[in-house]
Amino acid sequence: MAEVAADVAAPATTAADVSQNGDGAERAATSAGDTVTSAQLVTPWEVSGGADGKIDYDRLVEQFGCQKIDQSVIDRIERLTGQRAHPFLRRGVFFSHRDLNEILNLYEKGKKFYLYTGRGPSSEALHLGHLVPFYFCKYLQDAFKVPLVIQMTDDEKCIWRNLSVEESRRLARENVKDIIACGFDMSRTFIFCDFDYVGGEFYRNMVRIGKCITINQARGIFGFIGEDYVAKMAFPPVQAAPSFPTSFPHLFGNRKDIRCLIPSAIDQDPYFRMTRDVAPRIGLQKPATIYSRFFPALQGESGKMNASDQRSAIFVTDTPKEIKTKINKYAFSGGGATIEEHRKFGANLDEYGAGRMLTGEVKKRLIEVLTALVGNQQKARAKVTDEAALQSPAVRNEISRSLSLHKVYCALYRAKSSAWARTATLTCSGRCGVCYSRQRHRGLLSALCVHRTCQ
Amino acid sequence: MAEVAADVAAPATTAADVSQNGDGAERAATSAGDTVTSAQLVTPWEVSGGADGKIDYDRLVEQFGCQKIDQSVIDRIERLTGQRAHPFLRRGVFFSHRDLNEILNLYEKGKKFYLYTGRGPSSEALHLGHLVPFYFCKYLQDAFKVPLVIQMTDDEKCIWRNLSVEESRRLARENVKDIIACGFDMSRTFIFCDFDYVGGEFYRNMVRIGKCITINQARGIFGFIGEDYVAKMAFPPVQAAPSFPTSFPHLFGNRKDIRCLIPSAIDQDPYFRMTRDVAPRIGLQKPATIYSRFFPALQGESGKMNASDQRSAIFVTDTPKEIKTKINKYAFSGGGATIEEHRKFGANLDEYGAGRMLTGEVKKRLIEVLTALVGNQQKARAKVTDEAALQSPAVRNEISRSLSLHKVYCALYRAKSSAWARTATLTCSGRCGVCYSRQRHRGLLSALCVHRTCQ
Repeated sequence: MAEVAADVAAPATTAADVSQNGDGAERAATSAGDTVTSAQLVTPWEVSGGADGKIDYDRLVEQFGCQKIDQSVIDRIERLTGQRAHPFLRRGVFFSHRDLNEILNLYEKGKKFYLYTGRGPSSEALHLGHLVPFYFCKYLQDAFKVPLVIQMTDDEKCIWRNLSVEESRRLARENVKDIIACGFDMSRTFIFCDFDYVGGEFYRNMVRIGKCITINQARGIFGFIGEDYVAKMAFPPVQAAPSFPTSFPHLFGNRKDIRCLIPSAIDQDPYFRMTRDVAPRIGLQKPATIYSRFFPALQGESGKMNASDQRSAIFVTDTPKEIKTKINKYAFSGGGATIEEHRKFGANLDEYGAGRMLTGEVKKRLIEVLTALVGNQQKARAKVTDEAALQSPAVRNEISRSLSLHKVYCALYRAKSSAWARTATLTCSGRCGVCYSRQRHRGLLSALCVHRTCQ
Repeated sequence: MAEVAADVAAPATTAADVSQNGDGAERAATSAGDTVTSAQLVTPWEVSGGADGKIDYDRLVEQFGCQKIDQSVIDRIERLTGQRAHPFLRRGVFFSHRDLNEILNLYEKGKKFYLYTGRGPSSEALHLGHLVPFYFCKYLQDAFKVPLVIQMTDDEKCIWRNLSVEESRRLARENVKDIIACGFDMSRTFIFCDFDYVGGEFYRNMVRIGKCITINQARGIFGFIGEDYVAKMAFPPVQAAPSFPTSFPHLFGNRKDIRCLIPSAIDQDPYFRMTRDVAPRIGLQKPATIYSRFFPALQGESGKMNASDQRSAIFVTDTPKEIKTKINKYAFSGGGATIEEHRKFGANLDEYGAGRMLTGEVKKRLIEVLTALVGNQQKARAKVTDEAALQSPAVRNEISRSLSLHKVYCALYRAKSSAWARTATLTCSGRCGVCYSRQRHRGLLSALCVHRTCQ
């Protein structure tokens, strides 16, 4: 415990900050470790640059104690996957990690790992910043041929945003469509919503994890205060659980040896440090992580794209006209914020200082690139009909849960046959699954059972 | 929130007390509201009498603000059920309540309610004190013909007693057999273990409840301290959830109008006061309660029977010889605790002061009664084979959960037929439930599917 405290302790933000910060707090509940240095502020709820307005990533890596991804790691990934590394790697968007080399060592020996990422469904549509981990996951999944689990923390958003359970679930379902539209190999992808999936071995892992974090530690890490609801205190284990393969018995059986790699933005590191600290205490392996820089707001490098600030973000639902307007109007080009400022201080020439392009040209090219990207995303999403989304493993799982046990029992009973016989003695007592009466169904494999409710 | 605080605030015991108090803390996590008056101490973790060594129940009722059960209520119950009231009612073992009259009003109008009780599986076998709520529930179930849900809080015991998940689940399963042996109408009884049942609408209710209790309130009610694990803070909503019918969609659909009546010992009142306070805030009905006195330790009225103190308790596993020895050796008869004390102070004659019986005769009769009761319990339990326990709805549910989704999907798919067709478009995508590949099963209603794993 002392170890956890030492490892993750960080100046706490108050939970009040969290709720005030609105959408900056994507998956807000789930991590912290505030780092304030020369005005540089990095928390899962707020990100702003230092004195020069920029994030000092070297400093972050040093403070958090994680490793940088150097060229040798990128070369190794290219060698192992037999293909060129993703631009996010080559251009240093994903720039830091924990234990990535261990994952690569295992992979080299023929052992697979799995990817875990997530999304707190706080808005109707994703913005470009949200796409970064999903695009990167798609690359990793295709390159390494590994399973991917995606957690939709509808419970978290219900708690932090004070949304109703129903509204959180609706947003999650909408977001699932955007995520499916990223083009994952759905035969290797398991998307799940907490409100539907929590239970069984997943819940058992939540309790195991919750027995390793004290209330004081949670307050230190997540900044909870006494006026916060206990539901917040209960959440961190929910987000930690997918880091362990035993939380997915239908995917991995009871294997404990499959390692997990978590792609995320670096502000989540304190959270996963906590998870890594808990892992050996419950006899499970630490998840490895790979961290990205923040996706900048249109206004520039000193913040991150924020769904609650329309001016800062391009959404996957934006029209070409909206994209054009936002970029021309809000995108940082080095010019002064106002005409007065521009007249007074002149332009920041770092951005296009090499002189090869003019501001207008840069913006024009950006509009082209983003319009194409968003257009493709919209086309792909249009194909994700309600029905298709329902057919994804994620939602199938959800439906299976919400199907009353009743129907499941009736179907199981009807299916009583050779394959079924082996489990039948355990599962089917010959009673109706709803009323538990001993009245038997009308014969084996009959489509109808005696009770009207069974139909 | 202020309301909750005002309603349930009580001098907090430290959670350290809880873990130290061992077995006195049946379902320890779940309630509090310590009441110390003239040395009388009543918490869910500790019960001891006042200056005269006895519990002042009138005082408790007044402090907790619940109602006493008077003769008119008992008469009414007899009139409504058409049978003589249970001795526990007639003799004042169950002596207090909240909103019991509302339940009876509804019943009179032909509206059913359901019963909820629970057990924290902390020991291999139940003792006589544990049987009280179950025997009383059996009477209520038979008399009113109502459903009964029994929550096995294996998660709670795993957290508080530092048991492994596996050991807690094993104890829960053993205890389920003792509970089934009480002779419930299993067609109306749903026994579930948290580690298996938490999920779906139950979990959604947990989150709804957890959004109504602040960390400060939980500390006030349950005495949590900073060194406690977050898993403790997460537990109260787990025990509150069964108070609401929507936590059991397979029993009650999505009906919110079915009231819940909770039989328990009065030390649980502060807990259910909290639940009652939360109910209207999440649009659900308050549970009604009916409270018993404490089952005394063999040593006398000043404490309650305690599974961790072998001398204080008769277990359902005790042999006739053990029962005889315990009663003759430990049972309070009014005599002095030691020969010296007896010589010095003489006997307390209240107990058999009427002079109709001698101590030895009272004990002899008690041995007869308890030997028969325990013998019957043992005979009934012997009939609850592993298989029978597995066929109880409780464990059927558990098995259905631990059946991989895979088998369920395969069975559902095989059962694709008229009744099934209506849900088939939602549930069955024609992919294998395990590997999510598109490979279809070998034809409708076939006993075998293509994938070996399906079998």
